[in-house]
Amino acid sequence: MNDKRVPTGIRGLDDMLSGGFLEGSTALVRGAPGTGKTLLSLQFLVHGATQCDEAGLLISFEEFPLSVHRDAQSIGWDLAKLEKRGELHLLFTSPQVLMDNLTSPESPLSRLLLRSDIRRVVVDSVSHFRKLTDDALELRKTYNVLTNALKREGVTSILIGEESRADYVRVEPGQLSYVADAIVLLRYIEIDSAIQRGILVLKMRGSDHVKEIRRYEIERGGIQIVGLFEGREAILRGTPHRVQAGFPPQ
Amino acid sequence: MNDKRVPTGIRGLDDMLSGGFLEGSTALVRGAPGTGKTLLSLQFLVHGATQCDEAGLLISFEEFPLSVHRDAQSIGWDLAKLEKRGELHLLFTSPQVLMDNLTSPESPLSRLLLRSDIRRVVVDSVSHFRKLTDDALELRKTYNVLTNALKREGVTSILIGEESRADYVRVEPGQLSYVADAIVLLRYIEIDSAIQRGILVLKMRGSDHVKEIRRYEIERGGIQIVGLFEGREAILRGTPHRVQAGFPPQ
Amino acid sequence: MNDKRVPTGIRGLDDMLSGGFLEGSTALVRGAPGTGKTLLSLQFLVHGATQCDEAGLLISFEEFPLSVHRDAQSIGWDLAKLEKRGELHLLFTSPQVLMDNLTSPESPLSRLLLRSDIRRVVVDSVSHFRKLTDDALELRKTYNVLTNALKREGVTSILIGEESRADYVRVEPGQLSYVADAIVLLRYIEIDSAIQRGILVLKMRGSDHVKEIRRYEIERGGIQIVGLFEGREAILRGTPHRVQAGFPPQ
Amino acid sequence: MNDKRVPTGIRGLDDMLSGGFLEGSTALVRGAPGTGKTLLSLQFLVHGATQCDEAGLLISFEEFPLSVHRDAQSIGWDLAKLEKRGELHLLFTSPQVLMDNLTSPESPLSRLLLRSDIRRVVVDSVSHFRKLTDDALELRKTYNVLTNALKREGVTSILIGEESRADYVRVEPGQLSYVADAIVLLRYIEIDSAIQRGILVLKMRGSDHVKEIRRYEIERGGIQIVGLFEGREAILRGTPHRVQAGFPPQ
Amino acid sequence: MNDKRVPTGIRGLDDMLSGGFLEGSTALVRGAPGTGKTLLSLQFLVHGATQCDEAGLLISFEEFPLSVHRDAQSIGWDLAKLEKRGELHLLFTSPQVLMDNLTSPESPLSRLLLRSDIRRVVVDSVSHFRKLTDDALELRKTYNVLTNALKREGVTSILIGEESRADYVRVEPGQLSYVADAIVLLRYIEIDSAIQRGILVLKMRGSDHVKEIRRYEIERGGIQIVGLFEGREAILRGTPHRVQAGFPPQ
Amino acid sequence: MNDKRVPTGIRGLDDMLSGGFLEGSTALVRGAPGTGKTLLSLQFLVHGATQCDEAGLLISFEEFPLSVHRDAQSIGWDLAKLEKRGELHLLFTSPQVLMDNLTSPESPLSRLLLRSDIRRVVVDSVSHFRKLTDDALELRKTYNVLTNALKREGVTSILIGEESRADYVRVEPGQLSYVADAIVLLRYIEIDSAIQRGILVLKMRGSDHVKEIRRYEIERGGIQIVGLFEGREAILRGTPHRVQAGFPPQ
Repeated sequence: MNDKRVPTGIRGLDDMLSGGFLEGSTALVRGAPGTGKTLLSLQFLVHGATQCDEAGLLISFEEFPLSVHRDAQSIGWDLAKLEKRGELHLLFTSPQVLMDNLTSPESPLSRLLLRSDIRRVVVDSVSHFRKLTDDALELRKTYNVLTNALKREGVTSILIGEESRADYVRVEPGQLSYVADAIVLLRYIEIDSAIQRGILVLKMRGSDHVKEIRRYEIERGGIQIVGLFEGREAILRGTPHRVQAGFPPQ
Repeated sequence: MNDKRVPTGIRGLDDMLSGGFLEGSTALVRGAPGTGKTLLSLQFLVHGATQCDEAGLLISFEEFPLSVHRDAQSIGWDLAKLEKRGELHLLFTSPQVLMDNLTSPESPLSRLLLRSDIRRVVVDSVSHFRKLTDDALELRKTYNVLTNALKREGVTSILIGEESRADYVRVEPGQLSYVADAIVLLRYIEIDSAIQRGILVLKMRGSDHVKEIRRYEIERGGIQIVGLFEGREAILRGTPHRVQAGFPPQ
Repeated sequence: MNDKRVPTGIRGLDDMLSGGFLEGSTALVRGAPGTGKTLLSLQFLVHGATQCDEAGLLISFEEFPLSVHRDAQSIGWDLAKLEKRGELHLLFTSPQVLMDNLTSPESPLSRLLLRSDIRRVVVDSVSHFRKLTDDALELRKTYNVLTNALKREGVTSILIGEESRADYVRVEPGQLSYVADAIVLLRYIEIDSAIQRGILVLKMRGSDHVKEIRRYEIERGGIQIVGLFEGREAILRGTPHRVQAGFPPQ
Repeated sequence: MNDKRVPTGIRGLDDMLSGGFLEGSTALVRGAPGTGKTLLSLQFLVHGATQCDEAGLLISFEEFPLSVHRDAQSIGWDLAKLEKRGELHLLFTSPQVLMDNLTSPESPLSRLLLRSDIRRVVVDSVSHFRKLTDDALELRKTYNVLTNALKREGVTSILIGEESRADYVRVEPGQLSYVADAIVLLRYIEIDSAIQRGILVLKMRGSDHVKEIRRYEIERGGIQIVGLFEGREAILRGTPHRVQAGFPPQ
Repeated sequence: MNDKRVPTGIRGLDDMLSGGFLEGSTALVRGAPGTGKTLLSLQFLVHGATQCDEAGLLISFEEFPLSVHRDAQSIGWDLAKLEKRGELHLLFTSPQVLMDNLTSPESPLSRLLLRSDIRRVVVDSVSHFRKLTDDALELRKTYNVLTNALKREGVTSILIGEESRADYVRVEPGQLSYVADAIVLLRYIEIDSAIQRGILVLKMRGSDHVKEIRRYEIERGGIQIVGLFEGREAILRGTPHRVQAGFPPQ
Repeated sequence: MNDKRVPTGIRGLDDMLSGGFLEGSTALVRGAPGTGKTLLSLQFLVHGATQCDEAGLLISFEEFPLSVHRDAQSIGWDLAKLEKRGELHLLFTSPQVLMDNLTSPESPLSRLLLRSDIRRVVVDSVSHFRKLTDDALELRKTYNVLTNALKREGVTSILIGEESRADYVRVEPGQLSYVADAIVLLRYIEIDSAIQRGILVLKMRGSDHVKEIRRYEIERGGIQIVGLFEGREAILRGTPHRVQAGFPPQ
């Protein structure tokens, strides 16, 4: 991890990250279903492949690779084309096989990372690691092995974390939040009788970052940061209220 | 899943869905008892059968088929007539038998889907899959098998999810919300000392959708979207309050 | 279940139910202790027996039949007289014996229902069914058997559900709320430093119904619906607050 | 249970109870430690013994009888004198022994009730019955046996229930609230930066009662009802707030 | 327990207690870490030893006696000097050994109490009794044995209870709150963006007491009661809010 | 522990601590991930090594020492240089090995502390001690052994505690909060639609300290205390609201 920035290609988010993730760092992107975690991560890979000449790898534990293609296609990206060009690699595996690969320097994965000069990795999602153990400390150890292996390869990575409910800042089993270098939260936020989405960079080790909760939308072309949430309190709880005339007068 | 729309026949909801569900997609419709999940799903099937020339299949795990007929009848639909014409099929089975069928290409269900050219499927309700396993990851795998099988058949489907309490956005065991392409929430909302119902499209993979929470009523003829919830905060918690004069002045 | 109405005899409630429960339907009446669930149910039976020429049956799992007589007596009904005339039957049994009876066409209960031409049944309370099993799905199956048996007999029935705390809409173990055709909630509501009672018809399959939460009192003669809860928010949480001057101005 | 009233001797409370408990009824008095449950019950016994010529029995499961004497003495009652005169009986026993006694007509307790013409009984506290069983339904059965036995003896009784936290209306394990004829709640209520006490008659089978939450104090001479809680909302939650200027204007 | 008062030496607290604890009574002092429970108790012992000629005993279950000396020293007391003079005794033991001692009249502890004419005892903290048993009723019995033994010796005692979170009134496992004669609560309270401390006498058997929540500080010389919390609501929840202009106007 | 102060080098924090931690004391620093617990602790060690001529030791249970170097480097400190000069020692071990060392006077750790004249110690993090036992009392004993050993060596130490959620004051398993001499809380606080950080000295045994919650930022050069949170209520809950015009007028 050095001062070099790895831009996500989401301009507003890169602004929030002071230019992008730090090279070699591991970011945790957490959010409830539908908040766009996978899209954000794909955008990160596609941007690397098409704009930065950095090959990417998506490691998924779901069993239906077509849905990833559809997700990408729905906002206008052709992953298959990137795959054919060797700019993007999709790996559908299990947490156990991934861990076995990561801890063996001669594994197919290690060879792939090396041979294809992979610079960006996404793991979708780390929630599947709970399959490996029920024990919180064992899980923490697993997360350490995972992030250390990714660091050893020198890649910049996003770990997707699934949130089961919309609440305040909370640490998941295994406390991956402590291991990750950066934490990005995606939230549903009810504003004016509608559901909007908010993004927050909660933590970024070794870098300044924007502290504001910003509004984003998912559109053709990907995620767009579109504004702020002004005049509201308790945004992170999901159902904020308008700030009332206060004391002392502001 | 392509760009073709499969309208539900509930005009206001089709507006919220930008024309309807995407063909081949799987939607999760969640709500507490009495919010009208089954009615919404029947309306989806009846509309397909009578207006779009698309045969439908209702898979139910409850043991008393008459209640489905009564539900439909109560808002003016004659399911028996549609059944006789082969435009609607009702299947009363168990989760285990359904899964066995879905994983076997020569099963009676597969033959039915093929032979009758079923285009729309409703599963009422996915909560019964918890019978099959206590393990959250095993359940998730089951949901994957289910949705993949439905996709393989090319049908557009609604999975009904039973909510046990009215709260904020929450993920059910097995995290079906991550597997589903679209999520529609039905809610009781207390307004002006009365119980109203609200509908929200929380997520729709590969499509734009309305983000507002809208008010609906269950009437003869089915579900009607009838308006908005203006000037209220925390609607998704079920007991919203009026927005108060705020700061900065609006 | 058809369009014929079975009035409860509580005029305000019959108004809320668009005339009464639907014939052959099963209603779940839920409330905390002291909200008057048993009284409401007795009133339903007494009204049937004395005003509609419909014999009634109260099935109770408590061990002290005198308390039912006292309850009734306290608001001015003489159950013993109705029993003597064969217009009312009181059955004190166990959940297991009831289930055995319901699943056997030749059982004493079946003969009673037939011989006495019972048209209305009350089960007080379904909470005792939890004695039969710890398993939520098994319990749900039991509830299905129960309601299906009641439907098969063609009777209109009330199932009493005991709530252990006053909160928002919540589904009990076994999810009887999904099985019942109608749900009526009874609630304690703190208004102006006193405890009042509120009633709400949350769901009514196949019928329109009033959506307002209405105020009722327990008086000599039975339950009386006496008004509304105007200008209050969050009534269903039990401790509502006055609506404040809001935005936009009302 | 008939229409005859058994006054508690606490004038304000007797007003709330329309004159007193109904003869032969069983009341549950619930409250957190220090709210005065035991004092209220002793007052009930002392009033019966000294003003109504009704002998009383206090059944306690605690092991230190002196504390009861001290409690009484602290507000000016000499229990020992009443004991000597045979107007008051103190029984220190265990739940198991009590149950054995209650279910045997020839038991020492039965003989005591008969011989001494006991008319009022207090059980302090029913929480100790949880010693007998972990099973909620078994506990409920025990409560039924207890209250039925008390009724069979024709006595008017108070069962003391210990609340472990101050919240809203909640049913304890074994659901004694359903078995009791009357429920009286004692609460700590924070008003104007001080702790006050509030009393509420939540339920009274077969009788009208005051629905207001009233303020009481513990003084020499016993419990005194001293006023209301006007202009406050959510009193039952323990930390009420002032009613704010509302809509519609009041 | 008689009418004689045992002053704590904290003038403001003695005012709240109508002069002090009752002689022979057992008080429970509960609070979160850092609220000053141990200091309050030491002040009670030091005041007895230096101002009232009453020897004191501190029973501690922690393993490092120096910290007690440091605590005392930090606010200006020299416990070692008091120990040397026989006015203060420090006993570092285990719950099991304490219980064995308390139930044996010939134990070293009993001899110490007698020989040294101990009048005041502090047990720091009763939370350690949970080591003895997991069973709530067994724990309650243990607390009864403890308090009865202290009463039998005629000493006035403080039992320190550790609270694990700041919330409303709550009963700890074993329900010591019911056994104690007095309950004193210490709380953190956020006021004007700072943490203050509040003290409340929740219960005092056989005595009048102040009901207000008062503000205190820990200073050289010990605990000082320094004022009230005026114009705030929900103080006991720890994060109170200013009272707003209410209805009816106050 | 005496009156000598051990400054952290964070000027605003030293002001809050009346000059620094007390020599020989053990402070618990708690916070959610990203609040800067490790940075604060490193700053404490670096300041000691470079400004006070006090050698420091960081004991870590994580497996990747490089991340500590990176953390430090990111805000401008070169730990390796300090290590080379013998002013800073980094020890990567396990809780079990640490405990074995601490309880043996001849252990390598003891020799290191002695030989290198270590004056400041940081343990990152105490959450790993839960690996040693599931039992809360056993854990408490472990914490006692740990803090007593640190005191015996005469070092001033910081124990890092990981908080899993942002809420109010809460005691962790094993109740280290009772054992620690000082407690410092780090919090995320949502203000004006952005996430800020707040620091509070909750407890400081034997010393006066600032009670205000202060705002801090993490910048190049380390943690900076930058201001207050004025005009807000419920700051410690993480989502404060503006103080409203209150009663009585302020």
